[in-house]
Amino acid sequence: MSLIVQKYGGTSVGTVDRIKNVAKKVAAAKKAGNEIVVVVSAMSGETDKLIALANAVSTNPKDREMDMLLSTGERVTIALLAMALNDMKVDAVSFTGRQSGIITDTAHTRARIKNIDAGRIQEALKKGKVVVVAGFQGITEGSDVTTLGRGGSDLTAVAVAAALKADFCDIYTDVDGVYTTDPNIVPNARKLDKISYDEMLEMASLGAKVLQARSVEFAKKFNVPVRVLSSFHDVPGTLVTKEDKSMEKVVVAGVAYDKNQAKITLSGVPDKPGVAAKLFSKIADSKIIVDMIIQNVSKDGATDISFTVPKTDLKKALPLIKKAAKSIGCNDVVVHEGISKVSIIGVGMRSHSGVASRMFTALSNEGINIMMISTSEIKVSCVIEQKYTELAVRALHDAFGLEKTA
Amino acid sequence: MSLIVQKYGGTSVGTVDRIKNVAKKVAAAKKAGNEIVVVVSAMSGETDKLIALANAVSTNPKDREMDMLLSTGERVTIALLAMALNDMKVDAVSFTGRQSGIITDTAHTRARIKNIDAGRIQEALKKGKVVVVAGFQGITEGSDVTTLGRGGSDLTAVAVAAALKADFCDIYTDVDGVYTTDPNIVPNARKLDKISYDEMLEMASLGAKVLQARSVEFAKKFNVPVRVLSSFHDVPGTLVTKEDKSMEKVVVAGVAYDKNQAKITLSGVPDKPGVAAKLFSKIADSKIIVDMIIQNVSKDGATDISFTVPKTDLKKALPLIKKAAKSIGCNDVVVHEGISKVSIIGVGMRSHSGVASRMFTALSNEGINIMMISTSEIKVSCVIEQKYTELAVRALHDAFGLEKTA
Repeated sequence: MSLIVQKYGGTSVGTVDRIKNVAKKVAAAKKAGNEIVVVVSAMSGETDKLIALANAVSTNPKDREMDMLLSTGERVTIALLAMALNDMKVDAVSFTGRQSGIITDTAHTRARIKNIDAGRIQEALKKGKVVVVAGFQGITEGSDVTTLGRGGSDLTAVAVAAALKADFCDIYTDVDGVYTTDPNIVPNARKLDKISYDEMLEMASLGAKVLQARSVEFAKKFNVPVRVLSSFHDVPGTLVTKEDKSMEKVVVAGVAYDKNQAKITLSGVPDKPGVAAKLFSKIADSKIIVDMIIQNVSKDGATDISFTVPKTDLKKALPLIKKAAKSIGCNDVVVHEGISKVSIIGVGMRSHSGVASRMFTALSNEGINIMMISTSEIKVSCVIEQKYTELAVRALHDAFGLEKTA
Repeated sequence: MSLIVQKYGGTSVGTVDRIKNVAKKVAAAKKAGNEIVVVVSAMSGETDKLIALANAVSTNPKDREMDMLLSTGERVTIALLAMALNDMKVDAVSFTGRQSGIITDTAHTRARIKNIDAGRIQEALKKGKVVVVAGFQGITEGSDVTTLGRGGSDLTAVAVAAALKADFCDIYTDVDGVYTTDPNIVPNARKLDKISYDEMLEMASLGAKVLQARSVEFAKKFNVPVRVLSSFHDVPGTLVTKEDKSMEKVVVAGVAYDKNQAKITLSGVPDKPGVAAKLFSKIADSKIIVDMIIQNVSKDGATDISFTVPKTDLKKALPLIKKAAKSIGCNDVVVHEGISKVSIIGVGMRSHSGVASRMFTALSNEGINIMMISTSEIKVSCVIEQKYTELAVRALHDAFGLEKTA
C-alpha cells in the first residue's frame, strides 16, 4: 500500500467523459489498496474564458480580483470529480486550496507556497476517503485567495506530496513521459525511464513543457519521487528522481528548444566599470527575467551588450529596457525576435569533456550559425536563427545518439 | 450619508455589459456619499449550467459537493464587478461568503445563516472601499462551503444589512417594485409605494417571486428596511417595512397566485384519533412541505384527506406519501396536478369583515369552483382549476378595486 498524489491537468479533465475517465483511474488505484490524493486543474479552456471575461470588464484587472476569479475554475473540477467518484461508490471529498491548508505569500497571480498544513487532508485519508484537491491555488495568512501562476497545479501536487511524505507524485499529462526531445520534431525520440531532478529542471526551463520548473525545484528540495504518466494510455512513464550512478554514464539525456525568446542588443554602451551592473539591476527591478547575456570586446571605449528575454514579456519589457539603456548613456536598442534557443542537457557532462564542441560541430555541419552561447554544469545552450530550430534539434539528437539507450 | 446594501440578481449581472451597468449604479451611489456593500448572484444561466455538469457526472451528487460547485458562480461575479468598479476608479474589493463572515449550519444546499461576523466588511468600508459580497453562500463552523438555496442572495443581502445595521437594503430586480398583482395578467396592476413585512411574506410564499420569503422573515426579525427597485429603470420602487396605521386602511393589498401546486387526495382513511397526526408527521420527517390540508366529514368510519405540496417536490414526495398512507391503512392515493392557488393578502383584513365572502362571490360570479380554502389573519387562499388562474386573478383585482390607491 502506497500513499500516492495524482495530478491531472486541464486536458485530462476537459470534458464530462474525461472526468469520469479520471475517476475510473483514481478508483482503480484506490481499490488496489493505495491512499489517494488527487490534484486537478480547471477544465481546459475555462481559465482562458475567465481571463476573457476579466478583460471585457476591465482594462487592467487587479491581481487580487484576478485570483478570486481564476480560482473558481479548479473548484468546479474538484466538485465534479468528487461527485463522479462518489457515484462509483468511492468515498471522496473535495478540498479547496484553503481547505487543503496551502498557505502562500501575498504575491497575487504568482504566489509562492509558504507552507502546507495538511491536517485536514490527513484526517480525511484516515477515514478512507479519496481527497480531491484544487490545484493552482492557495490562501494568504490574511485569508485572501491566491493563485500560483500557470502550471501551478503541478506545484500543488508536488507540495502536497512533500507535506504528506507521499510515496509517489504522479503527474498525468497528455504525453506518456519525458522524451529525449520533442517527438513531433524527431520521430525516433526515446522515452526516458528516469531522469534526474537537475536534468528535468533544465529541460523544463529550456522549453520542454512536460513539468513546470518550480514544481521540479520543489520536488528536488523535498526529494519527492515524481512520475510523469499518460492520462489516456496505460503505459510506463518517466520517473523524475535523485541522481544516481547510472545517469552519469549518459553524456546527454535530452535536447530542448525554446522559441519564446527575443534577443535585445544595446550598441555603443560606454565601457566603464559598473555599467552592466546598473543596467541589469534596473531590468531586474522591473521583474523581467533575463536569460543569456553576452558582452562584446570593447572598441573605442564602447561595447555591445546582448541578452535574451521571453518573447511574451517583450511588450512590457521593452519600454523599461529602453529607459534603463538611456540611464547608462545608450540609445541604440535593437530587438531581434526571430531566434530560438536549442540546448543539450545531461548530468554526464560533468564527467565527460568535449561535449560543447561536439554540439557546435553538429550545428556547423548543418550550416547553422550560433549567435549566443551559454553553459552550465549540465547543459549547453545556443541561440540560433529560429528557422533552423527543427533542423538543429534533429542534428543534435543524432549527434549524441539519443535514439539508443545507453 | 447612508450605509446601503445593494443586491443585484442573476439577470442584472447576466452579461459583461450588465455588470458594467451595475458598476455604474454602484459608483453613482458611492459618489453621492454613501457607504456601499453590493451583494451579487451568479450570472444568469451559470447555476443551471453547473447543475447540468453535476448531473452529467453523477446520478446523485452529494450536497456538500453540489455546494462546492455552485458557490463558484457568485465568485465569478464578485471578482468581475470589483474589477469593473476598480476600472471606474472606485476602490472595491470582493469577498466570498467566508470572507464576509457568513456562518451557516451544515444543511448543505439549503443552509441557514447562524450569524454574521462582519468585521472584515466593516474594516474595508472604513477604508472607503465598496465591498462586493458573494450572495447565496456561507461557510460552516467546520469550514465547509454551503449555499442558502435558490434565491439565497436576497437573504445574504438582508442578513448583511442587519449585521451592519444598514440604513437600507436595496434589492434590484428585473421588475420595478411590488405590484398589487402580476402586471402580465392584470395590465392595470398598481405598483405599491410600501408594503408591510407580513404582507410581503404572504405575497412571497404565495408565489409572487419578487423577494424570497426567508429574506423577508429575516428583514422583519431585524427590522431591515428593504427597497425593491429596478436594475434597468431609475424609478421609485416599493419599500418593505414595519406595519403602520395607513396600511391597515387597505383591506386587500395584493392578489397572488401559485401554479406550482399539486393536490393529493387520500381516500378511505380510517377515521380514528391520531391517524392524521401519524400521516403528517411521517411526511414532515421526509422534509416535504405540505401547504393546505382539508379533511372531509367521516362516512362509514372512513374519511378523505386532501393536501397540497409544491409540484416541483412531487416526484420525490409521492413514494414517501404513498408509504405514509399505507402505514395508516390507506391505499387510495390520487394526485391532481392541474390546480393553482389564488390568494388575497392585506393587513387590513384584521379589522374588516366579509373579506372572504367577497372573494368567494367574485370567483363564483365567474363560474369558478373552489376546491380548497385556507385562511390566515391576513390572507385568504383558494385552490381552483389551473385553467381559471388568470381569470380569477383579474376578477379579484377588480372586486377589491386594487387599481386605485386607497
